[in-house]
Amino acid sequence: MKGTFLATAVRKALEAIGTPSAGQTVVVGLSGGADSVALTEAIASLGVGRGFRVVAAHLDHGLRPESTDDAGFCRVLSHRLGVPIRTGAADVRGRAKRDRCGLEDAARVERYAFLEAIRQEEGGAAIAVAHTRDDQAETFLMRLLRGAGSAGLSAMRPRNGFVVRPLLQVSRDQVLDHLRRRGLTWREDPTNRDLSLLRNRVRHELLPYLESRFNPRLRAALSRTAGLLADEADVMGAMGDDLFARAIGARGDSAVLSLSALRAAPGAVARLAVRRALAAAGGLRGISGLHVDKILSVASSKDPSSRRLPLPGNREAVFSFRELRFGPRSGPVRPQRLHVVSSAQEARA
Amino acid sequence: MKGTFLATAVRKALEAIGTPSAGQTVVVGLSGGADSVALTEAIASLGVGRGFRVVAAHLDHGLRPESTDDAGFCRVLSHRLGVPIRTGAADVRGRAKRDRCGLEDAARVERYAFLEAIRQEEGGAAIAVAHTRDDQAETFLMRLLRGAGSAGLSAMRPRNGFVVRPLLQVSRDQVLDHLRRRGLTWREDPTNRDLSLLRNRVRHELLPYLESRFNPRLRAALSRTAGLLADEADVMGAMGDDLFARAIGARGDSAVLSLSALRAAPGAVARLAVRRALAAAGGLRGISGLHVDKILSVASSKDPSSRRLPLPGNREAVFSFRELRFGPRSGPVRPQRLHVVSSAQEARA
Repeated sequence: MKGTFLATAVRKALEAIGTPSAGQTVVVGLSGGADSVALTEAIASLGVGRGFRVVAAHLDHGLRPESTDDAGFCRVLSHRLGVPIRTGAADVRGRAKRDRCGLEDAARVERYAFLEAIRQEEGGAAIAVAHTRDDQAETFLMRLLRGAGSAGLSAMRPRNGFVVRPLLQVSRDQVLDHLRRRGLTWREDPTNRDLSLLRNRVRHELLPYLESRFNPRLRAALSRTAGLLADEADVMGAMGDDLFARAIGARGDSAVLSLSALRAAPGAVARLAVRRALAAAGGLRGISGLHVDKILSVASSKDPSSRRLPLPGNREAVFSFRELRFGPRSGPVRPQRLHVVSSAQEARA
Repeated sequence: MKGTFLATAVRKALEAIGTPSAGQTVVVGLSGGADSVALTEAIASLGVGRGFRVVAAHLDHGLRPESTDDAGFCRVLSHRLGVPIRTGAADVRGRAKRDRCGLEDAARVERYAFLEAIRQEEGGAAIAVAHTRDDQAETFLMRLLRGAGSAGLSAMRPRNGFVVRPLLQVSRDQVLDHLRRRGLTWREDPTNRDLSLLRNRVRHELLPYLESRFNPRLRAALSRTAGLLADEADVMGAMGDDLFARAIGARGDSAVLSLSALRAAPGAVARLAVRRALAAAGGLRGISGLHVDKILSVASSKDPSSRRLPLPGNREAVFSFRELRFGPRSGPVRPQRLHVVSSAQEARA
């Protein structure tokens, strides 16, 4: 069968990662949409030659009445491709209510939990998901519009734990070309046209506007920028981890940083060490760049001793002579609080 | 006189930099436009209290017939503010022709050369220029649209050598408020309405569109992102410099890197070391991120020995067993050349 740009890109992306090797299993997320149909076919073809096993995994998000038809479509497709399929159903609305988050966030959490469960049951070496270069450009712009630092602008990684993204250098047009040449059909998700969702406004309005008015090759440029920032974020992240490790580290549900180490570090590294410590002491949920700014501003003040800053998640930062401790809030909250940060201001610094 | 947001911001910005102190001189670039009029007035007021000397500097770019009137306006204004003024005239068109660059780039080169000459003649401790938060957001977007890495997206720095930018956290609206409250007038540059210039399309079309459709506080968010990336770029840049210094360094018009050191470094640091070496061996003009990609790809290949890559500026990269040398091109150019990189693809990686 004649190669396509997509088939070559998938082969090279998996070779660069070195996974899966012969005899291993890869789980492919298959929604039934164009991207995941193309990815599943390409990986299945590659698996035949390379001797690795492919398992498709389809999660019914239960958000649209016709979503059960998608599962049927995916079963027929995987039968045709000669790969087994695992299906499941999630309660996305329930998850959104429990986690107090939007449906998109809840769907993502449920999807990755499902894929990881299947990977464990199948003894998989990797989970392949079908994010394309277009998705990457959209993610980059969404994070930029909301306010982000380099970690956020790194957008999606080619590999993140068991998750691999072999289409991250492949455009939507190249996906459609592959599908046409392989005679494959796919399901359209009507949600993708809903302009109340930020991603769809970025996809259908902002990107076409920017490409027609400013740079016809913008998706490639943004995807390249995201990759460069990801490389730098890895180096910076290692320096932040190192500063956190050289400091006093985590104790139970608290995390402690040495104030002198924090002050001696470049600002960008100090920011990352603070984020690392907050992650260790209850997680980064609700933490914005402005919280980190405030913490560093107190840390660098002349005498931070005995200052306390309330933080999201019923936590606080407590400054002593030598240390900065993050932990559960104790005692009454002081009247002087951090300003509430609106989502527009939130910076994923 | 009642303080304005701008006056406070200028005071804080100069305090953070620690320049100028009492008895020193600061040169302020004064075009006659709103931003530079507000900056000159605010610095002149501050200078009276703080005991530093202020000199206004106005360059006639000679690009518009009415530009000589701007010089007259600036003379009257500086007289009213009680500060001496130095004026000059530049041949921007001639510079653009000689340097084969656009008028905007040529004007920038001439302007900074003029300001630096005045600073030296006046014994100035700093040159203050009137870039605002709005300019910063525009610069960020222009570089992003063209394709940039973190160095490019760091946009303009609050301090860069002798140049300081005390309005970088001040919005255009705050400039106008200051002018109104101080009863100051200014000159409008009709060039600012010319939509054939990218900056003006970004200013008058893109930013208002993004703010009305996506984030009303986008200028603040982009300016914050630029600042975060600048902090990181400083740390990364120091690592790149360090790798270059630990390698073999510069010899005459050549620069040499150790291949083993380059391979051992994280990709992001290796990129910066290559750029640092190229800067030392003839400069970065014409060098795009894709050139750096290609150099690193050969450097990491199994046997790069005796490979040569032609580079812009009649230079080449020559690989030996242990070294990578950048220097003047020697011998005939091999037929296999680097692809010509269009400006849209150019990445300031």
